[in-house]
Amino acid sequence: MRPKIVLFGDSITEASFDVGGWGAALANCFCRTADVVLRGYSGYNTRWVLKVLDRVFPLKSQTQSLSLASPSNVVAVTLFLGANDASLPDRSSAFQHVPIAEYHQNLLAIIAHFKALWPCTVILLITPPPIDEDGRLRYPYGENPSGLPERTLESAKAYATACLEVGREACVPVIDLCSKMQSTPGWEKLYLSDGLHLTAEGNRVVFEEVVEALQKEGVSPEKRTVDLPLLSEMDPNDPLKSFQLLP
Amino acid sequence: MRPKIVLFGDSITEASFDVGGWGAALANCFCRTADVVLRGYSGYNTRWVLKVLDRVFPLKSQTQSLSLASPSNVVAVTLFLGANDASLPDRSSAFQHVPIAEYHQNLLAIIAHFKALWPCTVILLITPPPIDEDGRLRYPYGENPSGLPERTLESAKAYATACLEVGREACVPVIDLCSKMQSTPGWEKLYLSDGLHLTAEGNRVVFEEVVEALQKEGVSPEKRTVDLPLLSEMDPNDPLKSFQLLP
Repeated sequence: MRPKIVLFGDSITEASFDVGGWGAALANCFCRTADVVLRGYSGYNTRWVLKVLDRVFPLKSQTQSLSLASPSNVVAVTLFLGANDASLPDRSSAFQHVPIAEYHQNLLAIIAHFKALWPCTVILLITPPPIDEDGRLRYPYGENPSGLPERTLESAKAYATACLEVGREACVPVIDLCSKMQSTPGWEKLYLSDGLHLTAEGNRVVFEEVVEALQKEGVSPEKRTVDLPLLSEMDPNDPLKSFQLLP
Repeated sequence: MRPKIVLFGDSITEASFDVGGWGAALANCFCRTADVVLRGYSGYNTRWVLKVLDRVFPLKSQTQSLSLASPSNVVAVTLFLGANDASLPDRSSAFQHVPIAEYHQNLLAIIAHFKALWPCTVILLITPPPIDEDGRLRYPYGENPSGLPERTLESAKAYATACLEVGREACVPVIDLCSKMQSTPGWEKLYLSDGLHLTAEGNRVVFEEVVEALQKEGVSPEKRTVDLPLLSEMDPNDPLKSFQLLP
């Protein structure tokens, strides 16, 4: 049974199989060794996620869950939420806002759910990305006549910090994407297409960070069993021998 | 339970989640409605596939199969084989060659296996692509001191014709990729990166043909249930209402 890597999050996860996306790159990287399962829900915050978590990943009747046939079958799950929670409560995306203390508690609850469901699975937190406020004003979601961005860099940083704290509390690794991206000059346009979502370069950063973080936790294509003999390992004089040797 | 679309084939399937790949594009297109499961085995011909078919898609103990939890859960499977079978028997990739009559029978056997496993699933055959012999000489697999391409356009066409015949015999739809690609002038370099594998443009053709063929068979994102409420359908004044209304 081929193991799975589950990607769980908001639109930055949902769009991760678009051209140059980090999810597709991960699926390609783990080709023949693990299936990458996409569970991205555009616009969702941690409050909404908690309303549906047991539908997406049921604790009971696990065999009937979303094709995640066996608990031990999921080797890793990425948990990438907070960009919507961090919408400001008095701006145009207020309906997506979740107070930071609740965000913190919600992330802990999601992690507790994963630990109950998959005790041996690597849970990998990813902080929300930084926000380019100029980009948010140029590409608003819906109408925004206020002239004020619905998300700010300051708020994104605060939620990223909360995410890092959750990682320490729950003893799970965290990719500090917010800091990582800001360490490159010009990150605003280089990594973000609309001040929030990822460019191809931004996708590359997330992909590389996820691969590195998973590797640190012992999850890498090299350490996993390849599904069926590789062409390069077959004997051209007797290729069928490879199949006779299968256990 | 989110339904699945399985991609089964050789390297052109295995590489379909690389940047711009047709598999990733399909996963993105069916986002929130179906999971795209990658089962590509680089270099494999239909003879080798028959040696492992019941391992990859076991007829018995279906719940233990490769995460394909329920038989009815697979809405479509693409079957994209023949490019390796069509290697010439007296050239440098002779070990991958399968005679055309055997290729024909093997494809029928694979389809019979799928029909036994998934009686209601759309099986979509794809012919091998055309071959650009100049490209094969420039980018050989391994050593090829003969100066003769290990695959030819003539052979690819013959196997594509056999694939079309199988589709008629087994009553399953076939994408005639070999003819489709050749209908565009300059197809040799436009669609093929090494005379055999796909460029980004070639991937786009396969993606569009697969989407169109699946649609004809009633499998399209619009006709499938979206997993959980869409942001665009939520009431910004009461977003939680959407979750209370879930069945």
